[in-house]
Amino acid sequence: MRTLPGRDLSADVASLAAESGDVPLAEAYAAVRRLTEALAAPLSPEDQVVQSMPVASPAKWHLAHTTWFFETFLLLPYLPGWRVFDERWGFLFNSYYEAVGARHPRPQRGLLTRPSVAEVARYRAAVDVAMAELLSAPARRDCPDVAALVRLGINHEQQHQELLLTDILHAFSCNPLRPSYRSFHADPPLAAAPSAAPLAFVAFPGGLREIGADGRGFAFDNESPRHTVYLRPFRLAERPVSNGDWLAFIGDGGYLRPELWLSDGWATVQAEAWRAPLYWQRDGDAWSAMTLAGPRSLDPVAPVCHVSFYEADAYARWMGKRLPSEAEWEFAAGRVSAAGNLLDAGAPQRSPLRPLPGPAAGSGKLRQLFGDVWEWTQSPYAPYPGFRPAAGAVGEYNGKFMCNQMVLRGGSCVTPAGHVRASYRNFFYPHQRWQFAGLRLAEDV
Amino acid sequence: MRTLPGRDLSADVASLAAESGDVPLAEAYAAVRRLTEALAAPLSPEDQVVQSMPVASPAKWHLAHTTWFFETFLLLPYLPGWRVFDERWGFLFNSYYEAVGARHPRPQRGLLTRPSVAEVARYRAAVDVAMAELLSAPARRDCPDVAALVRLGINHEQQHQELLLTDILHAFSCNPLRPSYRSFHADPPLAAAPSAAPLAFVAFPGGLREIGADGRGFAFDNESPRHTVYLRPFRLAERPVSNGDWLAFIGDGGYLRPELWLSDGWATVQAEAWRAPLYWQRDGDAWSAMTLAGPRSLDPVAPVCHVSFYEADAYARWMGKRLPSEAEWEFAAGRVSAAGNLLDAGAPQRSPLRPLPGPAAGSGKLRQLFGDVWEWTQSPYAPYPGFRPAAGAVGEYNGKFMCNQMVLRGGSCVTPAGHVRASYRNFFYPHQRWQFAGLRLAEDV
Amino acid sequence: MRTLPGRDLSADVASLAAESGDVPLAEAYAAVRRLTEALAAPLSPEDQVVQSMPVASPAKWHLAHTTWFFETFLLLPYLPGWRVFDERWGFLFNSYYEAVGARHPRPQRGLLTRPSVAEVARYRAAVDVAMAELLSAPARRDCPDVAALVRLGINHEQQHQELLLTDILHAFSCNPLRPSYRSFHADPPLAAAPSAAPLAFVAFPGGLREIGADGRGFAFDNESPRHTVYLRPFRLAERPVSNGDWLAFIGDGGYLRPELWLSDGWATVQAEAWRAPLYWQRDGDAWSAMTLAGPRSLDPVAPVCHVSFYEADAYARWMGKRLPSEAEWEFAAGRVSAAGNLLDAGAPQRSPLRPLPGPAAGSGKLRQLFGDVWEWTQSPYAPYPGFRPAAGAVGEYNGKFMCNQMVLRGGSCVTPAGHVRASYRNFFYPHQRWQFAGLRLAEDV
Amino acid sequence: MRTLPGRDLSADVASLAAESGDVPLAEAYAAVRRLTEALAAPLSPEDQVVQSMPVASPAKWHLAHTTWFFETFLLLPYLPGWRVFDERWGFLFNSYYEAVGARHPRPQRGLLTRPSVAEVARYRAAVDVAMAELLSAPARRDCPDVAALVRLGINHEQQHQELLLTDILHAFSCNPLRPSYRSFHADPPLAAAPSAAPLAFVAFPGGLREIGADGRGFAFDNESPRHTVYLRPFRLAERPVSNGDWLAFIGDGGYLRPELWLSDGWATVQAEAWRAPLYWQRDGDAWSAMTLAGPRSLDPVAPVCHVSFYEADAYARWMGKRLPSEAEWEFAAGRVSAAGNLLDAGAPQRSPLRPLPGPAAGSGKLRQLFGDVWEWTQSPYAPYPGFRPAAGAVGEYNGKFMCNQMVLRGGSCVTPAGHVRASYRNFFYPHQRWQFAGLRLAEDV
Repeated sequence: MRTLPGRDLSADVASLAAESGDVPLAEAYAAVRRLTEALAAPLSPEDQVVQSMPVASPAKWHLAHTTWFFETFLLLPYLPGWRVFDERWGFLFNSYYEAVGARHPRPQRGLLTRPSVAEVARYRAAVDVAMAELLSAPARRDCPDVAALVRLGINHEQQHQELLLTDILHAFSCNPLRPSYRSFHADPPLAAAPSAAPLAFVAFPGGLREIGADGRGFAFDNESPRHTVYLRPFRLAERPVSNGDWLAFIGDGGYLRPELWLSDGWATVQAEAWRAPLYWQRDGDAWSAMTLAGPRSLDPVAPVCHVSFYEADAYARWMGKRLPSEAEWEFAAGRVSAAGNLLDAGAPQRSPLRPLPGPAAGSGKLRQLFGDVWEWTQSPYAPYPGFRPAAGAVGEYNGKFMCNQMVLRGGSCVTPAGHVRASYRNFFYPHQRWQFAGLRLAEDV
Repeated sequence: MRTLPGRDLSADVASLAAESGDVPLAEAYAAVRRLTEALAAPLSPEDQVVQSMPVASPAKWHLAHTTWFFETFLLLPYLPGWRVFDERWGFLFNSYYEAVGARHPRPQRGLLTRPSVAEVARYRAAVDVAMAELLSAPARRDCPDVAALVRLGINHEQQHQELLLTDILHAFSCNPLRPSYRSFHADPPLAAAPSAAPLAFVAFPGGLREIGADGRGFAFDNESPRHTVYLRPFRLAERPVSNGDWLAFIGDGGYLRPELWLSDGWATVQAEAWRAPLYWQRDGDAWSAMTLAGPRSLDPVAPVCHVSFYEADAYARWMGKRLPSEAEWEFAAGRVSAAGNLLDAGAPQRSPLRPLPGPAAGSGKLRQLFGDVWEWTQSPYAPYPGFRPAAGAVGEYNGKFMCNQMVLRGGSCVTPAGHVRASYRNFFYPHQRWQFAGLRLAEDV
Repeated sequence: MRTLPGRDLSADVASLAAESGDVPLAEAYAAVRRLTEALAAPLSPEDQVVQSMPVASPAKWHLAHTTWFFETFLLLPYLPGWRVFDERWGFLFNSYYEAVGARHPRPQRGLLTRPSVAEVARYRAAVDVAMAELLSAPARRDCPDVAALVRLGINHEQQHQELLLTDILHAFSCNPLRPSYRSFHADPPLAAAPSAAPLAFVAFPGGLREIGADGRGFAFDNESPRHTVYLRPFRLAERPVSNGDWLAFIGDGGYLRPELWLSDGWATVQAEAWRAPLYWQRDGDAWSAMTLAGPRSLDPVAPVCHVSFYEADAYARWMGKRLPSEAEWEFAAGRVSAAGNLLDAGAPQRSPLRPLPGPAAGSGKLRQLFGDVWEWTQSPYAPYPGFRPAAGAVGEYNGKFMCNQMVLRGGSCVTPAGHVRASYRNFFYPHQRWQFAGLRLAEDV
Repeated sequence: MRTLPGRDLSADVASLAAESGDVPLAEAYAAVRRLTEALAAPLSPEDQVVQSMPVASPAKWHLAHTTWFFETFLLLPYLPGWRVFDERWGFLFNSYYEAVGARHPRPQRGLLTRPSVAEVARYRAAVDVAMAELLSAPARRDCPDVAALVRLGINHEQQHQELLLTDILHAFSCNPLRPSYRSFHADPPLAAAPSAAPLAFVAFPGGLREIGADGRGFAFDNESPRHTVYLRPFRLAERPVSNGDWLAFIGDGGYLRPELWLSDGWATVQAEAWRAPLYWQRDGDAWSAMTLAGPRSLDPVAPVCHVSFYEADAYARWMGKRLPSEAEWEFAAGRVSAAGNLLDAGAPQRSPLRPLPGPAAGSGKLRQLFGDVWEWTQSPYAPYPGFRPAAGAVGEYNGKFMCNQMVLRGGSCVTPAGHVRASYRNFFYPHQRWQFAGLRLAEDV
């Protein structure tokens, strides 16, 4: 998930003004920065340097890269007299902005033992002091471009907060000691066998619908423009697919039957010897899963997590259903509050950091749309009609990732509260599993 | 391009009956079989055994696999007394039908020196005799399933006719002797510099449109169901992008500027050191391209060919345009006759087998929509709304390839005439270049 | 096995003169060329074009490369008026001579459908006519360099005769039809269980010994100079390890016990999932092996074949023995006639082309030293003391392969009779198995 | 370099007694353990966790693995009442002892952020206390097996001291900040152009010689048995090849001329795009090299370092010389004291940790045989005649690495003083360059 704005930033002034009415930008900035550091606090210096696969990044790198973003796109252009903190660090902490210069190879981020965790902390502090200065000068703070960029940087850092947690879970899963990210309460005893209530679906009418960012509040450029789509009537399952559901899929030979899989998916199942979601481990008849709380018994009622698009698609085919399109999902979510089992931005230490069982079934309403797990859709990640990359440095790479990936919706248990919304488009490759991703079924009427 | 029907075959009876009114099925069968053999005739036994990359197949394999298709899906179930020609060949000539059994690994098709070209010819002859018997018995010929399957087998064999030519071009391109597939007339002298007429666009109104197979004549299942889409007004370029256009792109550093490329495309450009379309070769200031007629000077007016989706997309971005969606393309092509520089099914030896310059510009009409080059669209290959895999053997894998590929439209100079239509969906991975694929620009109004 | 002479060619005149006293050079040349063609005769054009792995070559390539060798190193420099047969073929048929120019990439030899088998036959004929002319002119024939180079070319072509057979066996083994190279007599019924006679060893005294080419008859440069080594007393097994012996090794978990293997060998066993020699297949309790006569039941008394050095070494460790050094082998073989189950150069169609049981045990003499299977030694392939690369084109790469490979001795059932001798050094990488390689045990006294 | 004893340990009692006469074993143990910790002291926790390539190990892993060695082979069998420090750590810190159980995959050692550096320090302390107890009890200390194993563990830990330094240099070389391992004095100004004195050679007579461990003092099992070899007269260069020499090789196209290289070497040069030794960097006309003191200007008089066997061999061929055999080297070194620019075990902080210019030429004696750089020989690493693996756990894998590697002799600037001797056999793969390896020329008389 790597997005940058492409819209004309000044066009967003009105909405940003409205938004910033709630929380002054300087406060929002400070809060998100504090949260990042709180998330890194349980990690030792050793934990913070490691990169367990090319697509993951070290915690220290997340801490530095988000800071480099503010330095590069705010302090350098807008704060007179700012001198680059360290000339050599741009090479290290640029993620993929070709226009900003060459970069350290991504697969080697884990070799950067220097700068140290302590030096990165000093970097963060220095940038924070300067950002406070920038945001305290009304002439600058109220400049539309500055406000838009700060808002962007805040949302960018929230994305990295989630990645920091997904990446450290993967790193810990590679360690036979199976460490826990921090101390957690013991799980309550598992509920008895999940209720036999059949999975209920909620119906939605078809017709011409509008999807995309509606201009109220911040949105990434890939959510624009708002546009019309034609939908056929459809139904969405009231809840995500659960671990218990998934065990039935495994029990029925789900990972062994080529007819259930896309061709590329079946090739991946065989090449990777997948037999269960990532992080699952069978101990005799019981299953456990590696979590940020270390290995935990599998709760059959909680949403299944860490499955790829290929697995989600195969499960839906096995059920005789399908995944929803992103337009269906967004239309259905339009009137639901973006609340749920998310990362509590104010009290992260109380967040469960794993999907939880939802409320009891039978309400006839969609449950757990937001939080718990990102939900794979059947939609390839593609530009909306009329999507137009903006000129300029920050917008240089709009749409750059709009190929070969699939859209996910709804946020997860490690997405910061306040970050996600109905029109939010996340995206990953169909084989990737280390994100907190699950699924919800759909069907035609 | 690997498709199989998923619709309930009996549902197609009406349209097939209408269709088969024109040409008796037995004649259509015999004609397509003759064409395949005519296409293989210029090739030596050595030429027919070679496989130049995993995704290509030997000519001999194409000859046998299409025969295996008729044997497996027609003769075995429907011709009483048919005995399998050779029990061991199903393993060799099954392409990807998991339900029909295990298969020889695709990358090793080029190691099958046995059965020989002569034995495969005997196989074809035996199956043809039996098919003639099947199709001469009214009770069988008029069975809707048989008719539908024969029609499918014919279209399947036409797809392999095109692949036979694309694959042998690739194999010959790997040989430093640069052989010619057959003798060709010398090219006429190249026209003078292409006219300076600016590229014209044809406008189309937006609104609710129907796309997909309309039930008249044969269609693959991936063209169904016909359904409604909402389009915004758009414009299509009157002609495909030409070699001359592409030279300007190269001259402007098109292959050297990351800002023009999708992220995955840029990674491919660097990994593969792409600097021009596949088969192009620079000789000092001049360019030539390997073709089925051997190396030929590049005609600046002819459509560019053998480019990947990544290149097509980058070119469009460089031009400030975009690729059309497949719905736009199909809507625009709806009233155009499916004629053009295609493979002449009746006189293949007179087909040019390479893209040619089109008629003069300025008519205000779309030219070269069909034939010359497949046109990349911006649409990922995905199921149409309501697409539903059918039960049964032939339909086992519907939709199996609907992930990670992009849709192309319109047919090429090696597509058999009569095979393509406005609703036809071809699909390849975005990095693939060995097909006869080019592009046409689109823009928003 | 790729060697070229590095000695001063003129220094060999005397021995060559003596040698050529037996058979006129022109006759020897003609005989070896005829044999190559006889070996290719059972193969179809399709068979001759295929390359089943990068280290193997197509039969057609062997036919052309050996011809290119004579054209390049004899006709071009020594036959006035010779014009290159085809300017473009040097690129195709040069194996690895960097000084002679660039080469077609080795893994793509199997893509060369052109020139055809028939064209290569014309190439051979044309070169043969010219060689006959060269060798009929006394002034040229008696030129020491010419004689030495012809002798070298003859031995070079003999090496490729063996490779042609090993390579086509590998290609056929990749074909599920398991073709036979030519018709063979049915095997006689297998003998009853092999005799229970314990494996006998023959003792040799230690001391200072001379090994290396003794100057009588042709030798490759890697057999020189003859030099002194100091040997400790040792014993050699009277016969090679048999298939029956190997079954006992498998039965005792030989492929499952890391303590029996070299570290690199164990890594290979695991990566390649080796559980038996190459070409072996278990059918219930019985074993068969793919041979040039197609699949055959395993004869427990015949020498084991198609094992790697790693396997040979592991077997010896399991037995509490070791492999002989090449010096020990050569010293022991010094007085044994170089006869055995070799490729009958005069009547190849009567050669069994697979290892056979040897004479009955108990004679107290070494049996099957020559023929049947090449015998792995414990000696890395390294230059003899004083080995000195010669100046000039043919000798450019002397010693180029003297790293990472192991020495084998004694020839195999597909080595042309007359080609091998006691001082002959063959060499392959320790993981390679497609050669006809087995082993003989040794032990310290 | 991974060796373990295979001799009957009790057979060494006499020599060990003699040896331990000098320094009580408990003192020797304590000293080597202190040195390891002193070597790790300049490294931050982040530095200690990183693994820059599969063949390297994190510093923390070296600290723990050497401790695990003493715990597993001494405390567990010989100290009554010892309880394993942490049951789960054996899996993490076993290097390759298959008999001791399964192991963490080597390429993933860098993912072990836990146990922390502090926990490993506690592990070391606990084992040290227990070892002190073991070595203070005369009954145990004087047990021949215990003494032999402690002596082995000490030498084992010394090997890891060297590896810790070579591995951290590689890790630092991957960091664009190019850190220095610790503070060093500035280099003195470089000497003027190296003296024009021609390279002198020292002559040695041939004949029957004895090489291998002579039974005085500790030796690894691969140095045994002492045995007779027959040598021809030879000459050794008085000093190692220098950086200045190497610049001449580069200047003469050394890395561009295939005729200078072994076939496998040339393939590596092309695949890896080698143009200079590892760590060298050209800045305009000047060259610098990454060292443990960070980037330093290249001293033309100092020995060249960080070259592979392939490079050493190509250089020798370019010079018309050769590398010495290990027997020649050992015979020549037999009377030279094993002193030189080694790691000062008593004052590591004063060690230069890089090769230095040697004393002035012209003495007619061999210089810098020990220290500065390991010297590649032409000898493949193979068992000595009569080498016999011992029974039992520690000796399980004797000889396991005796394939595909080449022998190096003499120790380097990061080899602990007292660790190396004339019969010492180090070994690495011919393509490896991250060790402190150079070369010395030899020639025949």
